[in-house]
Amino acid sequence: MFIYPKMYRKLRRGPQVILPKDIGIILSYSGVNKNSVCVDAGTGSGWLAVSLARVAKQVYSYDLREDFLKIAEHNKISLGLDNLELKQGDVFKKIDEKNVDIVTLDLPGAEKALRNVKKALVPDGMVVGYMPHMEQVKKYAMKLESLGFVEVHTVEVIVRDLLVRKEGVRPTNTGLWHTAYLVFARKGTSYGGTNTVQGKAV
Amino acid sequence: MFIYPKMYRKLRRGPQVILPKDIGIILSYSGVNKNSVCVDAGTGSGWLAVSLARVAKQVYSYDLREDFLKIAEHNKISLGLDNLELKQGDVFKKIDEKNVDIVTLDLPGAEKALRNVKKALVPDGMVVGYMPHMEQVKKYAMKLESLGFVEVHTVEVIVRDLLVRKEGVRPTNTGLWHTAYLVFARKGTSYGGTNTVQGKAV
Amino acid sequence: MFIYPKMYRKLRRGPQVILPKDIGIILSYSGVNKNSVCVDAGTGSGWLAVSLARVAKQVYSYDLREDFLKIAEHNKISLGLDNLELKQGDVFKKIDEKNVDIVTLDLPGAEKALRNVKKALVPDGMVVGYMPHMEQVKKYAMKLESLGFVEVHTVEVIVRDLLVRKEGVRPTNTGLWHTAYLVFARKGTSYGGTNTVQGKAV
Amino acid sequence: MFIYPKMYRKLRRGPQVILPKDIGIILSYSGVNKNSVCVDAGTGSGWLAVSLARVAKQVYSYDLREDFLKIAEHNKISLGLDNLELKQGDVFKKIDEKNVDIVTLDLPGAEKALRNVKKALVPDGMVVGYMPHMEQVKKYAMKLESLGFVEVHTVEVIVRDLLVRKEGVRPTNTGLWHTAYLVFARKGTSYGGTNTVQGKAV
Repeated sequence: MFIYPKMYRKLRRGPQVILPKDIGIILSYSGVNKNSVCVDAGTGSGWLAVSLARVAKQVYSYDLREDFLKIAEHNKISLGLDNLELKQGDVFKKIDEKNVDIVTLDLPGAEKALRNVKKALVPDGMVVGYMPHMEQVKKYAMKLESLGFVEVHTVEVIVRDLLVRKEGVRPTNTGLWHTAYLVFARKGTSYGGTNTVQGKAV
Repeated sequence: MFIYPKMYRKLRRGPQVILPKDIGIILSYSGVNKNSVCVDAGTGSGWLAVSLARVAKQVYSYDLREDFLKIAEHNKISLGLDNLELKQGDVFKKIDEKNVDIVTLDLPGAEKALRNVKKALVPDGMVVGYMPHMEQVKKYAMKLESLGFVEVHTVEVIVRDLLVRKEGVRPTNTGLWHTAYLVFARKGTSYGGTNTVQGKAV
Repeated sequence: MFIYPKMYRKLRRGPQVILPKDIGIILSYSGVNKNSVCVDAGTGSGWLAVSLARVAKQVYSYDLREDFLKIAEHNKISLGLDNLELKQGDVFKKIDEKNVDIVTLDLPGAEKALRNVKKALVPDGMVVGYMPHMEQVKKYAMKLESLGFVEVHTVEVIVRDLLVRKEGVRPTNTGLWHTAYLVFARKGTSYGGTNTVQGKAV
Repeated sequence: MFIYPKMYRKLRRGPQVILPKDIGIILSYSGVNKNSVCVDAGTGSGWLAVSLARVAKQVYSYDLREDFLKIAEHNKISLGLDNLELKQGDVFKKIDEKNVDIVTLDLPGAEKALRNVKKALVPDGMVVGYMPHMEQVKKYAMKLESLGFVEVHTVEVIVRDLLVRKEGVRPTNTGLWHTAYLVFARKGTSYGGTNTVQGKAV
């Protein structure tokens, strides 16, 4: 029932992929555009990495596993992308790039990358965490705040299909309603302004 | 409670805008990228037009109302975009462009533009309709099918905020859960292949 | 993934049943209680009828089809209910009962029963319609308003499962998110007071 | 935008109340009926207690605070209920009743009541916890499992309003989408049968 946009139908799937529903919100909420430099980790099947590369100036994507990087390499080639560099490496230890606009993290213990992420980002840069469980979200968000990131904001994206037929319109009976939470945050600016919104109960 | 991505905070709002939650899904499901040529109508405040222009090669956005085009012009300038052409014109009468990759429609009676949309699109091009009510969706989707568009697919995007605090994690109590439905469709290919998915009840 | 309350596991299913998620909201929004007299149509497998009978003083349930009434009879007996009368009959033609507190309608063209429903109800009585498609909801709600019913209110009930495990808490990946819309309405009081809430856009 | 069923409009609100959307699912999933004996804690404004009493044979509701019990007493009287006993007491220390069919818990640290709940319940009895945060759900569910409760099942109830008007049908723009999670569980039967469903990832 879920339609993959045409581009995604060319792609191979190895490890669990990030789906277009989450990729879309990452694109619009992070504000990635033709001038953006992005770092992505872990690569996995590379669906997010190639989606970013179709929009951004340059994307660097890290994974520890060579087999995953091969799948991503296949996907990169089938889309003809030349601005995506796939790197075997550990972002917990080091992020080579500087002046990065957007970092995306989809790996267990993502909070352990946040110190390196902060160093890699431009003053106003954004980091996006993708994590299935609320415990991870909490640990990660607390770490973001302790490191001075601002505008920490967590969402869950639900794309609900509507069945449109002559005999009647209604939502589909069943659907996909959870993949992961997305945690957005912005690096603290030099003047230290914080405008965290998560502190207010709604 | 809703966080606008930083880019959007610079933008003026005149008429009702399309929000980043819907823009994101339009971006990822339409597959817009650096090589894309887009047509957008109506411009309104231009939020979707500028979002597309930050990603696409070239965007043309039509509106009948000069006052709206002025707001959009302001938004275009504040983002420094030079690949967005704002045009006063009626897409029900004419779409000047050819070989367009993606057309986005946010106007009453959008189905009346579909013949011109079909002419403007590349063989594989996509059209996205944005419409608040189910009746509009039905009329529009039926028109798409009668004109031979394929992969007609309607969704509703819900971005749910999570409140992440030391004292506990939970969804916010209230939230935005409807703006409009998004109807995606692809121009029928020359060999006439249809793979409409909406025909199957789920 | 969906847990039926223990009672429901004893029940047979013939035609499509109304599920506990919708039954619960019918119970609490209709205010059915130990003093209530209810009319239900069509019976179908009788899940709603037996659920009402476990709470109400007396329930009458109509269906045209004998085979459905047999399934419902089985379900009635297996729960040991003696306050549920299963009747073969057509509520479009006649509802025998008077001074009914609550009427529930789950049948195609339910609006055709509304004149009889109005006669059967106490001045303050409620009618609940169960209908999958929005076109039915609209036709039915318009009919309710033209007949002077008040407090017309349509909802969709989503019961989302949470996966709670040592390794993490998260919503289940997929779930049931549409069965039918529930349309609640109250018979107009003698002084003709209307306080329809659907007129206000929100 | 939210319609309270008529009964609820008579009720006073002191402390935070449990709403009809959650009460409905408690009614249908717990299977409460005319033969049921229920224990409820804490009473709060008594909305759940009176809702149970309108359906059950007998309800006992505990609260520590006299001021809350007074509000609940008012609500009990305005509905003319004589099968609801409001008790000042601490369920963490003692539950006086035996052979209870259903226990409902809406209090901080609800898991601390579970040993007493288990003693109070019939072999097949159900306990329902109402808790806003995921951390509470996890702690509570883990305690349920360690005490041998079975069929531990957590849900979140979303009742979405539909705006039905001549000019078009659509969901309301905003709405209530979180109050609390509901955790259902059944006392382990003497033969120790467990059929926990939460163990399976979906």
